[in-house]
Amino acid sequence: MPADIEVEKKDEFYLARCLQLALKGKGYVSPNPMVGCVIVKDNKIIGEGYHAKYGEEHAEANAIKNASESVEGATLYVNLEPCVHYGKTPPCVDLIIKSKIKRVVIGTIDPNPLVNGKGIEKLKQAGIEVKVGVLERESKKLNEAFFKFITQKIPFVALKIAQTIDAKIADAEGNSKWITSEQSLHYVHQLRSEYDAVLIGSRTAKLDNPNLTVRLVEGRNPFRVILDSALSLPLELNVFSDKFTDKTIVLTSAGSFKSKKEKVEKLNSLGVKVIPVKSRRRKLDLREVLEKLAENGIASVLVEGGGKVFTEFIKHKLADKVYIFIAPKILGKGIPSISDIGIKSIGDILTLKEISIQNFGEDVLITGYL
Amino acid sequence: MPADIEVEKKDEFYLARCLQLALKGKGYVSPNPMVGCVIVKDNKIIGEGYHAKYGEEHAEANAIKNASESVEGATLYVNLEPCVHYGKTPPCVDLIIKSKIKRVVIGTIDPNPLVNGKGIEKLKQAGIEVKVGVLERESKKLNEAFFKFITQKIPFVALKIAQTIDAKIADAEGNSKWITSEQSLHYVHQLRSEYDAVLIGSRTAKLDNPNLTVRLVEGRNPFRVILDSALSLPLELNVFSDKFTDKTIVLTSAGSFKSKKEKVEKLNSLGVKVIPVKSRRRKLDLREVLEKLAENGIASVLVEGGGKVFTEFIKHKLADKVYIFIAPKILGKGIPSISDIGIKSIGDILTLKEISIQNFGEDVLITGYL
Repeated sequence: MPADIEVEKKDEFYLARCLQLALKGKGYVSPNPMVGCVIVKDNKIIGEGYHAKYGEEHAEANAIKNASESVEGATLYVNLEPCVHYGKTPPCVDLIIKSKIKRVVIGTIDPNPLVNGKGIEKLKQAGIEVKVGVLERESKKLNEAFFKFITQKIPFVALKIAQTIDAKIADAEGNSKWITSEQSLHYVHQLRSEYDAVLIGSRTAKLDNPNLTVRLVEGRNPFRVILDSALSLPLELNVFSDKFTDKTIVLTSAGSFKSKKEKVEKLNSLGVKVIPVKSRRRKLDLREVLEKLAENGIASVLVEGGGKVFTEFIKHKLADKVYIFIAPKILGKGIPSISDIGIKSIGDILTLKEISIQNFGEDVLITGYL
Repeated sequence: MPADIEVEKKDEFYLARCLQLALKGKGYVSPNPMVGCVIVKDNKIIGEGYHAKYGEEHAEANAIKNASESVEGATLYVNLEPCVHYGKTPPCVDLIIKSKIKRVVIGTIDPNPLVNGKGIEKLKQAGIEVKVGVLERESKKLNEAFFKFITQKIPFVALKIAQTIDAKIADAEGNSKWITSEQSLHYVHQLRSEYDAVLIGSRTAKLDNPNLTVRLVEGRNPFRVILDSALSLPLELNVFSDKFTDKTIVLTSAGSFKSKKEKVEKLNSLGVKVIPVKSRRRKLDLREVLEKLAENGIASVLVEGGGKVFTEFIKHKLADKVYIFIAPKILGKGIPSISDIGIKSIGDILTLKEISIQNFGEDVLITGYL
């Protein structure tokens, strides 16, 4: 094998290991990115590390700390450009330079305006050989939520739709238990553990009275975001009365927030945060909803219903990704998953990108980007 | 391997070959069943045959005729019970007895009331060893259309639905070109070549003006059945004016048939058959539609739209199978694939049976039984 191809292959190999390590932080590091780091000397991994929890050490610092021998002259692999700014921890770039690492291989630059190439620049200035763009696509995909959050200041939004073949999410009375399979439900709990927050509309909150917690798999609970423009949901709902109320956030119209002070106070006393946002015709301004969530450190949101909420997110081009579970069932009449999103003719049809298809029991899951 | 297991395995092996041979008649033998036959002597296949075309020799006769040596003392394998009645050809049972076959292995009995065990009985009476039920499930599945047709006197009905994820088959104006992929379209043409007839409603006929012929794959054209209760479709439509009009059948209400004699005559002069059936509120009685088609030798129908026709077939429990192509696209507003089928609550949800899932390009095809 020619030497340069061999180097390329090696770099990809170690970068892939970084991605693998990075994933261990899934669900725990947000709104930080997931980062894994590998230190290699004489074709041997001498240190590994990853960012395990928000506020704690970065991947690079962990890898250097964990190294079984001196990292001087070694190559450091990391899926995201090392930080150059003081955050909760000191800049990784300084540590790398101080450690006399000889070469740094990076998956992708950090779009965070505080970094964004400056880390690479500083490493180069210190005489370190830097290579950028190894497994770049994979590196970006891994942190798709972080990338959107940091550049657009709103969370990455995914819709989770569980429907029949004829695209009904519930019967005409609103009953939806259970359209999709046990296996699909497991995967939904997995998703909940990976997204910072789950979001539902008031009708779904009332009809389903869900817990929106992670029970069927191991993982941390997400924030639970309830859109209730009229601030009329009963306090008895699970999300207001279980032991995780400090993870419940209600977004309501500025008008309701003002006129229903008592309700706001009651919710607050239960541990629930209530945030006012603009509204029009009893519909909350979804962009402002997302901005408020971002201000609260939420970088990714899994929207779990109902049909009106799905429709509004798509219509306003605020959904990035969809997970659509399709059960091999037919209801005929019922609540549609998606209604008028403003498309008038087939020429303007919305085509999902980067489709993937999986089976969960007898259900099909179609995942794609909008 | 114990001797009886060995015999069992061998019988399955040769029966599987029968099923393979039988498939060669697909699209050409209806309303007869697809049948394949293998003759084995001293662990060697000495003759093979299949029913190739309606009206021509049966599989057993072909296999015996094709045998490379005397079939005396041999075992004959066939996926369907040999016929005992005079049809277009003499009874196969007589031929088998005359040929001094020693043993007959059968996939499944022939539900045709004219046969239905009588063939097996006669073979046994002649001293032939008979084994029934080898690969029985597969044998029945292969001829599912024939089995329904012969026992219920109406064709086997499959719905072919091509829809978006949100279950729209066209935009609000009725435009449906093209929701699903080229690969899906190929498979639809394949299905057309396998079903005796394709059926559409008048709205689809008017909006799409389809040919309903087999063009993208090799195969014979199906009958084209158009439901037009008001008998108001223009004569310029492709199905009335192309060179296959002798394969077009229009079903209309008894009232329209009477009052629009001139139109009926014009259609007849173009080669189109017009059949009156009962109707109620401008909707044709679908059971009678199917009975009329059965009388015309049609044993299987592929329903290709539109949404109202799909809905009526499901509602009246007249659909046996569905092929649902789901394109990874979203329309929001548009014509739904399936509307009210009389299901009021989720407890009565219609669950497809024997699901299979395939991909065609980026589309998902869900196939199942109702």
